[in-house]
Amino acid sequence: MAPVIKLNSGYDMPQVGFGLWKVDNAVCADVVYKAIKAGYRLFDGACDYGNEVECGKGVARAIQEGLVKREELFIVSKLWNTFHDGDRVEPIVRKQLADWGLDYFDLYLIHFPVALEYVDPSVRYPPGWHYDGKSEIRPSKATIQETWTAMESLVDKGLSKSIGISNFQGQLIYDMLRYARIRPATLQIEHHPYLVQEELIKLAKREGIAVTAYSSFGPASFLEFNMKHATAMTPLIEDEKIKAIAAKYNRPPSEILLRWATQRGLAIIPKTTREEIMKSNLRSVEFDLSQEDIDAISAFDRGIRFNQPSNYFETDQLWIFG
Amino acid sequence: MAPVIKLNSGYDMPQVGFGLWKVDNAVCADVVYKAIKAGYRLFDGACDYGNEVECGKGVARAIQEGLVKREELFIVSKLWNTFHDGDRVEPIVRKQLADWGLDYFDLYLIHFPVALEYVDPSVRYPPGWHYDGKSEIRPSKATIQETWTAMESLVDKGLSKSIGISNFQGQLIYDMLRYARIRPATLQIEHHPYLVQEELIKLAKREGIAVTAYSSFGPASFLEFNMKHATAMTPLIEDEKIKAIAAKYNRPPSEILLRWATQRGLAIIPKTTREEIMKSNLRSVEFDLSQEDIDAISAFDRGIRFNQPSNYFETDQLWIFG
Repeated sequence: MAPVIKLNSGYDMPQVGFGLWKVDNAVCADVVYKAIKAGYRLFDGACDYGNEVECGKGVARAIQEGLVKREELFIVSKLWNTFHDGDRVEPIVRKQLADWGLDYFDLYLIHFPVALEYVDPSVRYPPGWHYDGKSEIRPSKATIQETWTAMESLVDKGLSKSIGISNFQGQLIYDMLRYARIRPATLQIEHHPYLVQEELIKLAKREGIAVTAYSSFGPASFLEFNMKHATAMTPLIEDEKIKAIAAKYNRPPSEILLRWATQRGLAIIPKTTREEIMKSNLRSVEFDLSQEDIDAISAFDRGIRFNQPSNYFETDQLWIFG
Repeated sequence: MAPVIKLNSGYDMPQVGFGLWKVDNAVCADVVYKAIKAGYRLFDGACDYGNEVECGKGVARAIQEGLVKREELFIVSKLWNTFHDGDRVEPIVRKQLADWGLDYFDLYLIHFPVALEYVDPSVRYPPGWHYDGKSEIRPSKATIQETWTAMESLVDKGLSKSIGISNFQGQLIYDMLRYARIRPATLQIEHHPYLVQEELIKLAKREGIAVTAYSSFGPASFLEFNMKHATAMTPLIEDEKIKAIAAKYNRPPSEILLRWATQRGLAIIPKTTREEIMKSNLRSVEFDLSQEDIDAISAFDRGIRFNQPSNYFETDQLWIFG
């Protein structure tokens, strides 16, 4: 069985999961079903990904066919920026659960620490940044404390077993730990050899917060957005140093990148639509890199972050990581 | 006269000030007096610098000799980490004012967004990180909101004309702007060509928060701490590219580095004990770099930050910029 990480909430989280960002609606139900068949138990979704209904169909089919039971799955979803106001949290979680066809999430995260004005799902759903570079972006008055208090009540009501955060910087985490009644169980962050995030991971480790890496392959995840600095870079899986390490272990470069993250103690959520790659990614925990090779990969660090609003559109209205 | 920046509090702040960090107690009163004589009006202090009594003596002498009036000066001080609890803010400000011999500060900043357990000044003062790498670091329960509310009451009581923040990341600023009754007037940050902080400065600009740069000369400010990566780098004022630009304008490299910051709209607070350099630094606003040269200097950016606890001592107990 795949390794698990014990969360501070008491629950076990699979260390290798399946990421649902950018999984096309047309194939999503089938992809989720196949991933369960391949052995995945954790699925990392979000209302922003716009495919929760289809994800739920894939899960339902797998359960119906007896491949897996609900309690064997670990379903993750996330709160979008426009639902940060305290009284908007529970209603949107209930809608997301209905979309999935579930009674509870295993883990529910604040997607970004950016409170924006409420937009009703009847007006626009799925949400997303939806920014044209011209219109005004209207912040909400909700503090992170207000949002987190509402997140805590999700646990009280059994709507999510655990709660956590995503894309948070260290200072904001330090501040929320002053007031959190229920501490965040996980922190999900962009993490790859070009963005090693040493200090942030140390903080999380010390505070007992499990870290999940997204975009483990680096720029490859962002090519489709035509990001200049992503397209200009050598893909990590084609990098000569990574390929040399891969050859040494007789594993594909993708497994090297994933193993580097899991040996650092992180959970991973790679995405693929191909069954052979699904299996390969799961197998990435079945060998160990030497400390020397781990360090060599960490030395790629250049502090390069791809997933920030200013990379998707020109704006001085949204800053996430300044 | 030196240029000023209009703060969101309505007050004018000199764009070129004098930094008091690391000014030796033995010479401090004299240095402040000479700086006033040289034309400085803004002095940037902190209880952490351990020289506020001496700074006050320099100011008192200059006022006594008729060089300047109190209302022509702009005195800045800062709240240390161990005084973040709401009820500790006013008493320590009153002590700091007494040390300076002043009735009010022009600007008072939260020094770091790190709330630590209260240590009475009778036990240890000046405070400082004082970390031996072994003992436990005890956080306080004070949120930034609690501390900021106490900071706001300093303005209500006339103990500081304006209030602001230092070493805050973008996400924490975004969050505090949800609840701030009085918005921070300034943000003071490490800023030099190796740490350009484009996104953070954009955020501040858009939110009407003036930015003050510290450590404008980069690694040079940190050599005395024997920081490996500071000593390993070419000092910026000896860098060939900076020297070439300096030659073009017939100015010393130090003035080029300062002008680069002020033309980006930032306030600066260089420190020196030498009168000719005091005057040179003040004169740095009397010429203009071309946009091409400004961009060439900005291209030095390598995201290298020197002023963080993990550079002063080995610890996983203090993270400021993860």
